[in-house]
Amino acid sequence: MDRINSLKQIAFEKKGFDGFLIMNAANLLYLTGVPGTACLLIPKKGNSILHVYSVNYEQAKAEAKTPKVEKVKRGEDLMAKVAGQVKAFKIKKLAADSLSVESYRSIMKGVKGTAKLKIQGSLVWELRKVKTEDELELMRKAAELTNAGMKAAYETIRPGVKETEVAAEIEYAMRMKDSWGTAFETSVASGARSAYPHGGCMEKQIKKGELVVVDIGAKYHDYCSDMTRTMVAGKPSEKQMKLHEIVKKAQHKAFETIKPKAKAKDVDAAARKTIADAGYGDYFVHGLGHGVGLEVHEPPALSSQSKDRLMPGNVVTNEPGVYLIDYGGVRIEDSVLVKKRGAENLTNGPYTLETER
Amino acid sequence: MDRINSLKQIAFEKKGFDGFLIMNAANLLYLTGVPGTACLLIPKKGNSILHVYSVNYEQAKAEAKTPKVEKVKRGEDLMAKVAGQVKAFKIKKLAADSLSVESYRSIMKGVKGTAKLKIQGSLVWELRKVKTEDELELMRKAAELTNAGMKAAYETIRPGVKETEVAAEIEYAMRMKDSWGTAFETSVASGARSAYPHGGCMEKQIKKGELVVVDIGAKYHDYCSDMTRTMVAGKPSEKQMKLHEIVKKAQHKAFETIKPKAKAKDVDAAARKTIADAGYGDYFVHGLGHGVGLEVHEPPALSSQSKDRLMPGNVVTNEPGVYLIDYGGVRIEDSVLVKKRGAENLTNGPYTLETER
Repeated sequence: MDRINSLKQIAFEKKGFDGFLIMNAANLLYLTGVPGTACLLIPKKGNSILHVYSVNYEQAKAEAKTPKVEKVKRGEDLMAKVAGQVKAFKIKKLAADSLSVESYRSIMKGVKGTAKLKIQGSLVWELRKVKTEDELELMRKAAELTNAGMKAAYETIRPGVKETEVAAEIEYAMRMKDSWGTAFETSVASGARSAYPHGGCMEKQIKKGELVVVDIGAKYHDYCSDMTRTMVAGKPSEKQMKLHEIVKKAQHKAFETIKPKAKAKDVDAAARKTIADAGYGDYFVHGLGHGVGLEVHEPPALSSQSKDRLMPGNVVTNEPGVYLIDYGGVRIEDSVLVKKRGAENLTNGPYTLETER
Repeated sequence: MDRINSLKQIAFEKKGFDGFLIMNAANLLYLTGVPGTACLLIPKKGNSILHVYSVNYEQAKAEAKTPKVEKVKRGEDLMAKVAGQVKAFKIKKLAADSLSVESYRSIMKGVKGTAKLKIQGSLVWELRKVKTEDELELMRKAAELTNAGMKAAYETIRPGVKETEVAAEIEYAMRMKDSWGTAFETSVASGARSAYPHGGCMEKQIKKGELVVVDIGAKYHDYCSDMTRTMVAGKPSEKQMKLHEIVKKAQHKAFETIKPKAKAKDVDAAARKTIADAGYGDYFVHGLGHGVGLEVHEPPALSSQSKDRLMPGNVVTNEPGVYLIDYGGVRIEDSVLVKKRGAENLTNGPYTLETER
């Protein structure tokens, strides 16, 4: 209920709304504590109503932090029902975190001009992007599992092994340390496909001398982690070592700028300048990083377009990369906690190209 | 390009649109063959334009089945750009598969009254819900991997083992047979939590005599599979065996009704009647099944509200369940292919409560 009260504070006291409709699955999980609910209507006065389809109703009733849980009946038009509740609560200025065109139309039809509706995607993010100590405990554990997964990758990658086999060992190591699953699809991209930032993981055999970009994240109690290392099966070449040094230096330069009040775009720029100075500016084809939490991609964004400033409790990725088409790619990534002073890498472990044989 | 041409046939020739905007990630993958693209504008006359952010641009350029791939520039308003192209193509009646309120408003602002826009969520589904032989080959393989995962569950579950450890063995077995990942989060829900259809998978130890609902699916070349078995760690009780027999019979009764032209709601009813006749009608709290393909939840829905009729090439789940709060649940699920005559279980393997020791 604390989180809902914090949202009320921002949305109702500061922004002047008198109702908030939560539709986004991760926002619902954040505010209610249970997965798989349909939507949450928060009125300024009165009890919030959590709507849940029958398949997850009993779980929500038992575990949700909201007092009032209503079952969506078979064939019921949920948005029409919500519109009726908006009217009953006498809500005049409704905010919603996200809405499809169809849902928007259903609600507006149902409230018959008694309420205005505005999309306010960023208000829940104001809360979610600052992690509490309780959340950080789970994120530290998720990072620890991810480190164990990366250790397994270093121990498994060798010429002849398949990308899928490497993923098998990574995920097994994380699960055996109590991981609830992966934060995203494990990526083990080797050879030419390592030049694609989202190269995936296939039944391809890793060849001697190929670059392998390993991008993984464990999930623990719904919290995500995110980490990348680049390895070579066998002895790295001069060029591979040079590219790796450039990316490592860029990551280090960016890390040094991560602290409270730093502009997110300046952190991005620190890495980007290092890579550009080395002559590879055109080959760093994505932003430096993103927030991590209940979802693996969250605000704040670390990019040249970002308007965010960092603050204590943010967890962001720091992941510069250089991608040479038809050759291969190098990316190094850690999940970083912004602290009252400076920053701390939650993920860590070796930054070496060489695998352990 | 065949798939895009088929969509043009339905949307332009039959429905009278002269442009189609694809926003949904799985629809984009289905139509272009590559993951991670931003949107696809298909005009009646002229080349389709696939928009891709720079991070995935090179991959899309190399692998997409569409001739024209455009990079979204940093800071560019993609929806405004698309609106400009809608005007340039002289599109008057634009369909979109899905749109947020914000994207809808951006486009409508950009086209300045020159085009109407209608959400047509079901048109791509007309294509996607009928699987071709090529797709079925991948889905058969995904089902084979899933069967191997379930075998590992039977071999692993015993009193004292953790749910996460069971998941470790399941996912390892699937990966070592070339799985690209899981179709959804592996669920190993034991004891009282087995009564929640989405009970998840935690670091909880499985106790002697507890029901364990194991719901898993491998992914192979982007195609999903979905399968559930319910097991008992140790010797099942009379009541557990009775519940299991009821659910097994319900699944069998439903399977017998699956054939071309069958009403989806009649298939649901066949299972529901069996469970109701046994006195547990109130405890079967979800629809009987759903389509499976690139996503794990697709049309057609097998539920009492469904208006679908089955046709050859549909792949649907058949998953009745009984959930007794504070006691436990039983669910049995297979992925079923609708054939020209009758149906075929793609997933299979033992339907036993007993684990292999």
